[in-house]
Amino acid sequence: MNFDIAAFARPELAESPRWNGFPPFNFVGGHNDEASVPVEALRAAADAVLGREGRTLGTYFLQSGPLGYRPLREFLAAKLKRAAGMSADPDEILLTSGSLQGLDLVNAAMLTPGDTVIVEESNYGGIFPRLQRAGARMVTIPVDEQGMDVDAFAAALARLKADGVRPKFLYIIPTVHNPTGTIMPLDRRERIVALCREHGLPIFEDECYSDLIWSGERPPALAALAPERTVHVGSFSKSIAPALRVGYIVAPWAILSRILSAKHDAGSGALEQMVLAEFCAAHFDTHVAKLNRALEAKLDALIAALDEHFGASVEFSRPPGGIFLWVKLPEGVDSTRLAEVAAEKGVAVNPGREWSKGGDAGRWIRICFANPGPETIREGIGRLADICHAEFGTPEIGGNRRRTS
Amino acid sequence: MNFDIAAFARPELAESPRWNGFPPFNFVGGHNDEASVPVEALRAAADAVLGREGRTLGTYFLQSGPLGYRPLREFLAAKLKRAAGMSADPDEILLTSGSLQGLDLVNAAMLTPGDTVIVEESNYGGIFPRLQRAGARMVTIPVDEQGMDVDAFAAALARLKADGVRPKFLYIIPTVHNPTGTIMPLDRRERIVALCREHGLPIFEDECYSDLIWSGERPPALAALAPERTVHVGSFSKSIAPALRVGYIVAPWAILSRILSAKHDAGSGALEQMVLAEFCAAHFDTHVAKLNRALEAKLDALIAALDEHFGASVEFSRPPGGIFLWVKLPEGVDSTRLAEVAAEKGVAVNPGREWSKGGDAGRWIRICFANPGPETIREGIGRLADICHAEFGTPEIGGNRRRTS
Repeated sequence: MNFDIAAFARPELAESPRWNGFPPFNFVGGHNDEASVPVEALRAAADAVLGREGRTLGTYFLQSGPLGYRPLREFLAAKLKRAAGMSADPDEILLTSGSLQGLDLVNAAMLTPGDTVIVEESNYGGIFPRLQRAGARMVTIPVDEQGMDVDAFAAALARLKADGVRPKFLYIIPTVHNPTGTIMPLDRRERIVALCREHGLPIFEDECYSDLIWSGERPPALAALAPERTVHVGSFSKSIAPALRVGYIVAPWAILSRILSAKHDAGSGALEQMVLAEFCAAHFDTHVAKLNRALEAKLDALIAALDEHFGASVEFSRPPGGIFLWVKLPEGVDSTRLAEVAAEKGVAVNPGREWSKGGDAGRWIRICFANPGPETIREGIGRLADICHAEFGTPEIGGNRRRTS
Repeated sequence: MNFDIAAFARPELAESPRWNGFPPFNFVGGHNDEASVPVEALRAAADAVLGREGRTLGTYFLQSGPLGYRPLREFLAAKLKRAAGMSADPDEILLTSGSLQGLDLVNAAMLTPGDTVIVEESNYGGIFPRLQRAGARMVTIPVDEQGMDVDAFAAALARLKADGVRPKFLYIIPTVHNPTGTIMPLDRRERIVALCREHGLPIFEDECYSDLIWSGERPPALAALAPERTVHVGSFSKSIAPALRVGYIVAPWAILSRILSAKHDAGSGALEQMVLAEFCAAHFDTHVAKLNRALEAKLDALIAALDEHFGASVEFSRPPGGIFLWVKLPEGVDSTRLAEVAAEKGVAVNPGREWSKGGDAGRWIRICFANPGPETIREGIGRLADICHAEFGTPEIGGNRRRTS
């Protein structure tokens, strides 16, 4: 029977590609170190919590209500207090299907087409299409080694005020910024909060990577400094395992209760929440400390590989945490084109234009180092240098040899 | 710091109420029989699958891609073939965060404000606000003891055609209809499919309850009769446990690949998919048969309680499956008011107007019988009869006594 059901889809929706497995050299996405997944402790946690409370799976929301499994919210309240200075009540935490559902819910609850939002110029790549779909106008602020540029932010706020535009929120990643990996120091956080107070601006703080800090030292969250105006989104994807899809929104009840009204899915997966709560109560801190040592070793492997294969032709700052390195390529290289060519050869990297609206975004790439092992990192970066040289004639020197075209 | 962050929410979003636990007599929602949750088998499944594949949690999508854990899709393909005559490939199945995300994704992929959709007049209560949010115009078709009225459907299609309106899809629950519990016989399914073919209409088939049939005999799904035009949504919430939040969309790749483009959450919870796949491969059929016996016994308890406390004043048909009974109350009773008063007294029922656009919807209530035990059912229905009598003067006779006001 010949019938074109696809003709009934919304015209802007692209066809998804068929999935063909991960590329052999996978430097994209938030994939984590598989060897660091705490399998045995998760098994024990699943066994314990199912044995004790398995029957509660028979009701929606277990016995915890639509905010999600209460023991996990209690863990989070304590952890966010200890690590980030926040004083959220467990009933001001909504568990979500990953932080991505968190982003979608906050946008769905707060944005109307035509709204203006302020975002960092270099940013999580997934935020740009989200804000576009919401019909929001983006005002971008440059970032530097300490995060968002406060003077530029102040100037933008003044300009918007003069134009009679009231922005809906500032979306910001102050701790282990994506893609630069920077951690904003306290004094800059305080200046940003003061400006937001002066202009009556809500803050939408995304802290997905903030558990991944080599030193373990984390400044207070913006949600700690300005709890009255901050919607704080986080995740267990980076600290435990991305496939689990458990994130959270922390916000004052007045706004969280409305965000909850936009959540129509009858709760996020309870088993994952139960297993995480059981695991985290006993093992979170020791697990994260161990994971950070593994990730830092991979970062060192990546930096050594870049030194070896790209030499002085690339620029980057060693990040204090996270799972990615933001790398500036030699002049003349177009990173969008490089990413396309490399993908065809099994090396996947994120081109800068997807992660930055900056004028020089085409010179940058984001390299995620958490998933591949050290040898794969070394070989993949070597291949990337060869591909770059074949396409753009640079880097000429690398791998103890001079490349010739 | 005084700051009204709620003023930044979209104005149509209501504040959610605080959750205060389930009511003592809980006859609403899709909660299931807690004693039937297969806890020990789920524990064993979690242990086995985590031990074998736990490390794959370190990557998004495990090693299965964005459609979800492939062994669960393989189980579903085989089960839907066996039980519903469908011949879906595992790569034409998308795992979702419950069937509710499935509904939202299909609507998001297919509906543009102003579109017309055809729906059954009595229907899953959650579909009406979903279609309203999507800006769709609903054309409603009455239902009878065999499901949607085909003559009324044909007349509506002819009327729409004459008006130059091309509806986007027919949303329909042919198997264990919600709220009536009916199962549409094969000949009526065939007539509906023929009409959809004649009018070039896609079908959006919701079969959440179709595993719950006392006889175990299930007619072929519409997706089996018209695979080229049917988007089929189902769930494990009713057959295993609602808190797990694992549902699925089955559709031709041409449309599924676009529905997938509307899924922005980096996958649904992998652990629940893994545990379900491991459990279902070994235990699905025996578990569902046992669950159905438990549910049918609860239905019998509910019918006995209605006979005892409401006597001949209520009308209903004994459903061949499912977890709810659709009950017509005595003349003069307003079920919306009854549900309000009863809720204050700890007895929760779904008022008919939320589950039907029919003119007499205010006479009906939906009573879910899966969660409370037989004694709670009996006591709750007794209380409901007393509350109904106190408010509306009926039923006068029940519980072996004549009520006096």
